[in-house]
Amino acid sequence: MGMVGGGKDAFIGAIHRHAAFMDGMVELVCGALSINPDIAVDSARSLFIAEDRTYLNFEEMIKKEAALPADKRMDFVTIVTPNFAHFAPAMMALDHGFHVVIEKPITFTIDEAKQLKQKLDETGLLLCLTHTYSGYPMVKQAKAMVKDGVLGKIRKVYVEYPQGWLSKLSEREGNAQAAWRTDPKKSGKSGCMGDIGTHAAHLAEYITGLKITKLCADLNVMVEGRMLDDDGNVLLKFENGAAGVLMASQVAAGEENALKIRVYGEKGGVEWAQHEPNTLLLKWLDQPTQILRAGGNYGDRLSSFATHNCRTPGGHPEGYLEAFGNIYRNFSLTLAARIDGKEPSKEMLDFPRVEEGIRGMAFIDNVVASSQSDKKWTDYTV
Amino acid sequence: MGMVGGGKDAFIGAIHRHAAFMDGMVELVCGALSINPDIAVDSARSLFIAEDRTYLNFEEMIKKEAALPADKRMDFVTIVTPNFAHFAPAMMALDHGFHVVIEKPITFTIDEAKQLKQKLDETGLLLCLTHTYSGYPMVKQAKAMVKDGVLGKIRKVYVEYPQGWLSKLSEREGNAQAAWRTDPKKSGKSGCMGDIGTHAAHLAEYITGLKITKLCADLNVMVEGRMLDDDGNVLLKFENGAAGVLMASQVAAGEENALKIRVYGEKGGVEWAQHEPNTLLLKWLDQPTQILRAGGNYGDRLSSFATHNCRTPGGHPEGYLEAFGNIYRNFSLTLAARIDGKEPSKEMLDFPRVEEGIRGMAFIDNVVASSQSDKKWTDYTV
Amino acid sequence: MGMVGGGKDAFIGAIHRHAAFMDGMVELVCGALSINPDIAVDSARSLFIAEDRTYLNFEEMIKKEAALPADKRMDFVTIVTPNFAHFAPAMMALDHGFHVVIEKPITFTIDEAKQLKQKLDETGLLLCLTHTYSGYPMVKQAKAMVKDGVLGKIRKVYVEYPQGWLSKLSEREGNAQAAWRTDPKKSGKSGCMGDIGTHAAHLAEYITGLKITKLCADLNVMVEGRMLDDDGNVLLKFENGAAGVLMASQVAAGEENALKIRVYGEKGGVEWAQHEPNTLLLKWLDQPTQILRAGGNYGDRLSSFATHNCRTPGGHPEGYLEAFGNIYRNFSLTLAARIDGKEPSKEMLDFPRVEEGIRGMAFIDNVVASSQSDKKWTDYTV
Amino acid sequence: MGMVGGGKDAFIGAIHRHAAFMDGMVELVCGALSINPDIAVDSARSLFIAEDRTYLNFEEMIKKEAALPADKRMDFVTIVTPNFAHFAPAMMALDHGFHVVIEKPITFTIDEAKQLKQKLDETGLLLCLTHTYSGYPMVKQAKAMVKDGVLGKIRKVYVEYPQGWLSKLSEREGNAQAAWRTDPKKSGKSGCMGDIGTHAAHLAEYITGLKITKLCADLNVMVEGRMLDDDGNVLLKFENGAAGVLMASQVAAGEENALKIRVYGEKGGVEWAQHEPNTLLLKWLDQPTQILRAGGNYGDRLSSFATHNCRTPGGHPEGYLEAFGNIYRNFSLTLAARIDGKEPSKEMLDFPRVEEGIRGMAFIDNVVASSQSDKKWTDYTV
Repeated sequence: MGMVGGGKDAFIGAIHRHAAFMDGMVELVCGALSINPDIAVDSARSLFIAEDRTYLNFEEMIKKEAALPADKRMDFVTIVTPNFAHFAPAMMALDHGFHVVIEKPITFTIDEAKQLKQKLDETGLLLCLTHTYSGYPMVKQAKAMVKDGVLGKIRKVYVEYPQGWLSKLSEREGNAQAAWRTDPKKSGKSGCMGDIGTHAAHLAEYITGLKITKLCADLNVMVEGRMLDDDGNVLLKFENGAAGVLMASQVAAGEENALKIRVYGEKGGVEWAQHEPNTLLLKWLDQPTQILRAGGNYGDRLSSFATHNCRTPGGHPEGYLEAFGNIYRNFSLTLAARIDGKEPSKEMLDFPRVEEGIRGMAFIDNVVASSQSDKKWTDYTV
Repeated sequence: MGMVGGGKDAFIGAIHRHAAFMDGMVELVCGALSINPDIAVDSARSLFIAEDRTYLNFEEMIKKEAALPADKRMDFVTIVTPNFAHFAPAMMALDHGFHVVIEKPITFTIDEAKQLKQKLDETGLLLCLTHTYSGYPMVKQAKAMVKDGVLGKIRKVYVEYPQGWLSKLSEREGNAQAAWRTDPKKSGKSGCMGDIGTHAAHLAEYITGLKITKLCADLNVMVEGRMLDDDGNVLLKFENGAAGVLMASQVAAGEENALKIRVYGEKGGVEWAQHEPNTLLLKWLDQPTQILRAGGNYGDRLSSFATHNCRTPGGHPEGYLEAFGNIYRNFSLTLAARIDGKEPSKEMLDFPRVEEGIRGMAFIDNVVASSQSDKKWTDYTV
Repeated sequence: MGMVGGGKDAFIGAIHRHAAFMDGMVELVCGALSINPDIAVDSARSLFIAEDRTYLNFEEMIKKEAALPADKRMDFVTIVTPNFAHFAPAMMALDHGFHVVIEKPITFTIDEAKQLKQKLDETGLLLCLTHTYSGYPMVKQAKAMVKDGVLGKIRKVYVEYPQGWLSKLSEREGNAQAAWRTDPKKSGKSGCMGDIGTHAAHLAEYITGLKITKLCADLNVMVEGRMLDDDGNVLLKFENGAAGVLMASQVAAGEENALKIRVYGEKGGVEWAQHEPNTLLLKWLDQPTQILRAGGNYGDRLSSFATHNCRTPGGHPEGYLEAFGNIYRNFSLTLAARIDGKEPSKEMLDFPRVEEGIRGMAFIDNVVASSQSDKKWTDYTV
Repeated sequence: MGMVGGGKDAFIGAIHRHAAFMDGMVELVCGALSINPDIAVDSARSLFIAEDRTYLNFEEMIKKEAALPADKRMDFVTIVTPNFAHFAPAMMALDHGFHVVIEKPITFTIDEAKQLKQKLDETGLLLCLTHTYSGYPMVKQAKAMVKDGVLGKIRKVYVEYPQGWLSKLSEREGNAQAAWRTDPKKSGKSGCMGDIGTHAAHLAEYITGLKITKLCADLNVMVEGRMLDDDGNVLLKFENGAAGVLMASQVAAGEENALKIRVYGEKGGVEWAQHEPNTLLLKWLDQPTQILRAGGNYGDRLSSFATHNCRTPGGHPEGYLEAFGNIYRNFSLTLAARIDGKEPSKEMLDFPRVEEGIRGMAFIDNVVASSQSDKKWTDYTV
């Protein structure tokens, strides 16, 4: 793995590294870790990257790595820069034959995302998008149960992602994370919806296997002086007629990352919350609610998608880094299988890709358009 | 107390009686408990009502009781019939000088509610509307904290009321409760929103002290063959600019009465859930979340509105009947104070009335109008 | 009902009244509410007791009531005085033909309790002991499931009752409740174990249907200057060989009434906590944990003992007063059945009696003896 | 890192690897992964260990590695064999100058543990004992708060570790984990207390900073035919006079790894549960309970010991592997600091060592002795 961005002063880069390292399958062999040369060099040293593979920008990294013998160069590039700086290194990496792992949202505009898709189609390379929450075993369990019809036809989806960290105008008080995430030039046309609303939308589509077809959005700037939405409420319609609500907020004072989803069908419902991710509540019309636990000892009650993504037996809580690690692990297993000329299992292949990235960009475009419209419903166009 | 409706085959009448009796302040002295004479008589007997005050319809009851000497007749009438049969007994009771306790929604149409208000204004009599959830001590605590500015300016209100009991077409399977509640002739122009959406809307306005000014509703009939909405999602705007979401559903399979509200302001947030009603979560920007408990031993941290409405010290869970009982108790204390020529305390006066009833009827009218409209926002008219 | 004790300055008397009134089956017709005549009279007036049935001591009450015609006098006496003052009014009431409801612990010494039993055996009168926690529907559900063998042979019982209210020497700071409860002359030979340990022991025996046969106790005085134990830990052995732990404490700082019990058998386990009393967790060897809820809609999954003791359908939390009320209600139904010459149902008959009272007194004697002994195990003698 | 044990068929070896790898500070360079040569070789290959550093037994590994140049050989040995096979490789590793990481319990007998201590004292090498639970940030927070006197003098410790996985005689049904853990020849003189009771005892001493001085144990074999205790209840006394209860069970049907500890002092209490490890409840005499969260944004409310051991900001649940990883990370940081000639910080130095290992062995000896004794209290001897 070579990394673009993710130097000492960054947040998400370190997360990617913990996630990638955890299973002993991925090594960080090179990096262009910062546009600040001092930080780039310092960060690389502290991460045990060899001096001659410490690069000052992604162009240098991709070119020089591509020039190495096949068995010496990095296998893939991980891009953890702010949103506006995703596309260029991703495209260049693909052009030079490298697979790509990329933070969400995939690009700055949906057009860029579509260009990546075209390139991927042409080259057959892999792109992995780190929609972390879909890496949790009990999220996969929920998806599997919906797919198997356990809940019957889905009627209602209720997803929420309240955070409180932008309750003040922190972007003016020296908070670097707040600064770029609330800056339309770096973050894109939406703040809250782009940053966390996309996670919620992805989770809803991932678990239900249903696409959003219409939406009605109310985006708000709650903190005076902020340049992008920090709160939003969205009514949803899904392709099968199910109704939904998506709420995301960065001004829900006192909340951490309280992502939660409830899906109700004709026969039952599921509930999952990120703060207690090893639990999936299973609700029934005329039976007591069941508490499904990751790693639980229930014979075949747990889907292979859930068990494949656990590292420990029940009772050993796995968390955010493990969910993140599952995305890296499945991507790596798929790569390894390909290299070995084998067919990856369906569980390995279950990681987010450019298609999810395009839908995420479309989600941002659609909620912004809807929020500016007087019409109730806006068709979800991609 | 004389009761109209609430015979053996009914649900809410028994609840009213438990609530009214619990504090030893109210006696059931007469009743017209059913339009079925056998049920009326049987029910009265089992409730220890004297034979000569067992009536077969409300007209008889009100007339005969009014003819009794002042110290012998009932003090007030409680109306627990289906929605369409609220107005007539209420108006007649007021016309004969009796105070009224009435199940929500107050009437069948908003016009009827306004007529009641006019009559109340003329007579100076009291009407008490049993919006039970506002009787919980920790709901009152939340209201008091918002009023005192503890949370700062309110930005976001998130209220939900999922139930699952109408996930099937139970109204065709002999479920009497389901039958009248899904029948527009008995229930009114909305099913789910009329039955439980109004509770959620009332709770939001009660706690925040803010009025809803605009809304955008998506009402759904999820169970084929049903005549009224059984699910709905509503975007809200409040008078101070706060945004909100209200969700109510009767097809959230496996849910009981999972009413929950979260209110976020500039400085903090509160969270209350009906299933664990003695707890109020208090969230802060930069301090740990606090668990406020009804009856808690925190000096003056608990508002007098909370402590006045507890019967036990902390650690003795009080529930739905006690919340209901608080409404009766405050109504009774206000009545008793009046009779004694005293000024009731502000805590006693805190029970829902005709004004809340009118807003509830307006809520139903407005969500139905919005749901049928292509416009995003519908002004909340009363 | 006539009441001995329970005047304005008392705690538990008011609880008894709420509980007794709630179902409309019991009326407070007379009382000797305090040994302070002013309080006795004032309290009686505020409780709507007639002047001529307001008594200044229990002897007067019992004599005068016994002299009334059968259809005018009270049916039973409720005794809510401090422990040392239970026996005399109870015995006198029985001697005059009145049934008795009595707060726990039943008496001051086990001998007194045995005398009451003998009197009850002779007279055929009823004595009801208000071990409140056994009135909760989900406690009854747990008992029913153990009895039906759902959990298999019981192996382990784990019961705890932490409170924090005596963390300071409150008995010296004007806290009247603390004063008598920590005074061996009023409370008996144990403080914490007598007050709440007995509840825990009763709950363990009630749910399992097993008797404690041996115990090993460690009682502590944690607050310097206190006269009775305020903390205790007890190892238990049950008649079938099951092992147990009972913990009770009044110095568990910050705890309310966190009574909780877990019972494990060969096939599964149950968990119930007083702070969320409408929930019973059901654990299985190889199936997900189930959340049983009072009033839940599970066909016949809920025992008749649970459903008989609910007043509302699922989703309407019932609490401490309802549990207390169930004891009064079952006692009253049993009385009423007897008066009508009918056989009370097994559900009605399920309330605590003198036998439980004797075991409670024996528990106190045995834990105190064990705590003073160097031997590990003390046989549980009655 | 070189690993002894932990081949494909083992459980805890994989856990150690995830934990060690997660921070990118540790590499697995060699191993003697199984006494079965095929498994040893296969396992090494799948873990990317070079063929020439794949060893068939620990003697070979230690000798050959010791013969490598200093900058090529492993830095430390990790021992993850069953209990009876800890001592020999540990001692040999120390004799050859290698630091050691070792699974708990440290050895088979306390004498072996003392021999290791002597060797460590002589050589100045490091031994790290993986008492995982003390790696959780909120456990460290609890310890720090007790140390800082936030709770006042400690009065009561209540620790429990219920598991259900040995509810059946699984050791006879082909469960390899069950087989060796219930076999006195491989596991030692206690089953349940050795395996998980030691964790509970360590946690109690770690958080309170107090040593157990006396205990009274009741160990049980609940499943017929089992050779070692599968359940136990222990009364504790601590050096400052605090009382405690320790419960551990492997037959608590339906429980996972429900380790939980509550510590109460004069001023407040803390509660921590392994199943939701990012939360620490903080209880107060006269203030609402607070929910402290790992990574929470509370200024300096969180101890440096808690923040040092988090990898993510609040709202990103970290779990068992991260706690395990913290032990490896602190051990590695201490090693690295030593190598660099720097003084490790007090946070780095906070990992369990031989002293904790000796106390763990003493705990086993003492509970077994106490369980066999008729005396109530057994002095805790080391």
